[in-house]
Amino acid sequence: MTPPALPPLLDLLGTAVFALTGALVAARLGQTFVTMAFFALVTGVGGGSVRDMLIGTPAFWLRDPWVAPVILLTALLAWFTPRRWWEGKLLEYADAAGLAAFAVLGTAKALAFGVAPLPAIVLGTVTGCAGGVIRDVIAGVPSILMRPELYVTAAALSALVTAAGALVGLGNAVTWIVAWLAGFVLRAAAIRLGLALPAYREMESGPAD
Amino acid sequence: MTPPALPPLLDLLGTAVFALTGALVAARLGQTFVTMAFFALVTGVGGGSVRDMLIGTPAFWLRDPWVAPVILLTALLAWFTPRRWWEGKLLEYADAAGLAAFAVLGTAKALAFGVAPLPAIVLGTVTGCAGGVIRDVIAGVPSILMRPELYVTAAALSALVTAAGALVGLGNAVTWIVAWLAGFVLRAAAIRLGLALPAYREMESGPAD
Amino acid sequence: MTPPALPPLLDLLGTAVFALTGALVAARLGQTFVTMAFFALVTGVGGGSVRDMLIGTPAFWLRDPWVAPVILLTALLAWFTPRRWWEGKLLEYADAAGLAAFAVLGTAKALAFGVAPLPAIVLGTVTGCAGGVIRDVIAGVPSILMRPELYVTAAALSALVTAAGALVGLGNAVTWIVAWLAGFVLRAAAIRLGLALPAYREMESGPAD
Repeated sequence: MTPPALPPLLDLLGTAVFALTGALVAARLGQTFVTMAFFALVTGVGGGSVRDMLIGTPAFWLRDPWVAPVILLTALLAWFTPRRWWEGKLLEYADAAGLAAFAVLGTAKALAFGVAPLPAIVLGTVTGCAGGVIRDVIAGVPSILMRPELYVTAAALSALVTAAGALVGLGNAVTWIVAWLAGFVLRAAAIRLGLALPAYREMESGPAD
Repeated sequence: MTPPALPPLLDLLGTAVFALTGALVAARLGQTFVTMAFFALVTGVGGGSVRDMLIGTPAFWLRDPWVAPVILLTALLAWFTPRRWWEGKLLEYADAAGLAAFAVLGTAKALAFGVAPLPAIVLGTVTGCAGGVIRDVIAGVPSILMRPELYVTAAALSALVTAAGALVGLGNAVTWIVAWLAGFVLRAAAIRLGLALPAYREMESGPAD
Repeated sequence: MTPPALPPLLDLLGTAVFALTGALVAARLGQTFVTMAFFALVTGVGGGSVRDMLIGTPAFWLRDPWVAPVILLTALLAWFTPRRWWEGKLLEYADAAGLAAFAVLGTAKALAFGVAPLPAIVLGTVTGCAGGVIRDVIAGVPSILMRPELYVTAAALSALVTAAGALVGLGNAVTWIVAWLAGFVLRAAAIRLGLALPAYREMESGPAD
C-alpha cells in the first residue's frame, strides 16, 4: 500500500500556513526565534505526525525533502516581518484552506492504508485539528477546540466528503477538490458570518426533574 | 504475534466510560457538541492509542468497526441528557472499571508483543491513565494525576497482577479477571473511603541539616 | 537497519537525569510517590518515545531491561532525599548533559533509519527537548521552551554537529563526543553567563508603516 500522491504543492502550502499560525503564537508571547521555529514545526507537522503515528507509518516529514526547509523559511518570515501583516482575516482564510486540505489528506491516507470509512473520517478530522491543539497546549493558551465557532466541524465535513467520494467510486481528483471546497467554504462562512454551534447548557428542567 | 483476543464487550465498555468522562468535561466547560465528541474521542481512545504507538502497531480503533460509533453514541448521550445524571458516584465507579480494564488490556497486549514484564507493567499503567491525562491537558484543567487519591496506583496494581499471572503461567481468563478485580476494588475503596497516598513534604530536618 | 549502538551508560545517565527533573517538578507541587514516578517516567523516556513513534519503530524502553528500573530508582531517590539536594546548579549542568546526549542520540538514530540530514537534525533537537515539554505541559507549568535562555539552541547544535560528522564521514565515536561537547558547552555557558536569545518585539516602525 502506498500513500496517495497528494498534490505536493497543496500539502506544502497547508504545512506553511499552519507553521505560520504557530510562529505567530510564539511572536504574540514575545518568544525567541528558536522557540518560534519550534512552534512552527509542531503546528505545521503536528497533525500529519499524529495521523502517521496512529496509522503506524513513519512521519511524512522525515522522508520529504521540502517540509523542514519550508518550516524554517516560515519561521524566518514571521521573525522578520511585523506581526500585524499576518494577523488579519487573510491568515484566518489561509488557515481554513490548510484545515480543509489536511482533513482531506488525512482521510485519503487513512483509506489508502485500509482503514474503514468511519475511523478514516475521524482520523482525517483529527489530522486537520491536531497541529493547532498541540500548539495551543504547549503555549498554554485556550485551545481552538474551545471556541464555539465552526472549526472542527469544517474539518469533519471535508473528511466526510472525501470518504463518501471514495465509497461511491468518484475519482480522487474530483473527490478531493469537492471535499476541500466543502470544508473551506463552511469555515469561510463561519469566519465571515460568525456561524457557531450551540453550546451545552445545563437543563434546568430535564426529564429527571 | 497477534494481540490478545480481549473480551470485546469489556473493551468497548471501558472505551465508552472513558469517552463519557471526556464528554462531561466538555459539558462542564459549556462546549459545543462537536467539541464534546472530540473530547469523548481523545479520552476514550487516548490510552490505547498511546499504547499502540509505543508498541509500534496501528491504533486499535482504526481496525475496529465498533469503537468510533460507540464514541459518537456516548457523545450524543452526554449531549441530550442532564449532566447530573452522570456525575455522581456511579460515574466514578464506572471510571474505576474502565481504568482497571485498560490497565489489564495494555499489559496483556504489551506481553503479547514480546515486551519484558517490567516495561509491560509500566505500559499497562500508562494505558489506563493516558486518556484522562490527555483529556485534562487539552481542557486545561488540573490533571487526575495531581490528586492524592489512589488512581495511578490502582492501574499499576491491575498491570502488576496481569504480568504476574502471565509469569506463573495462569490462564489468560483467570489472570485478567483477578487483575481487573484487584485494581477495581482498590480504586473503589479509594473512592468510598478516601484512601490517599501521602504527599511529598519538604524535610525540615533532613540528613543534610 | 539497526539503531546505533550508543554507549548504553551515557544513554541511561541521560534518562536518569531527565527522570530526576520530572520527579522534582512533582515534588515541588507536593505530589505523591506514584505521581512522582509517573513524571519521572514521562520526562525520562518522553523524548526518545516521541522520536521512536515518529520514526515508526517500537519505543526503546520496551526492549531495554534497564530503563524502567532506573526510572523507578530515580523516583525513589527523589522521594527519600530533600529537594534542595538536587535543585542547585548541579542539576542544571546534569540536565545540560542529558539534553546534549539525547540530541546526539536522536539524530544518530534517525540517520541510521535512513532519514535525510535536515529532518534528522530536527528530530534530534525534538528528542532532546520533548521530555521536558511533556513534563511541563502535564504539570501545567510554563514550558522550558518559553525561557529566552539558550536551551533548544544547544540541542540543535549537538544535532547539527552529529549530522555534519556523519556527512563528512567522521567515525561515530569522534562525531558523537564532539557533538555532545558542543551542545553541553553552549548550554553550560548559557547557565553560567545567562546567555539568551533576543525575543520577538513588535516593530513600531516596520516597512508597512
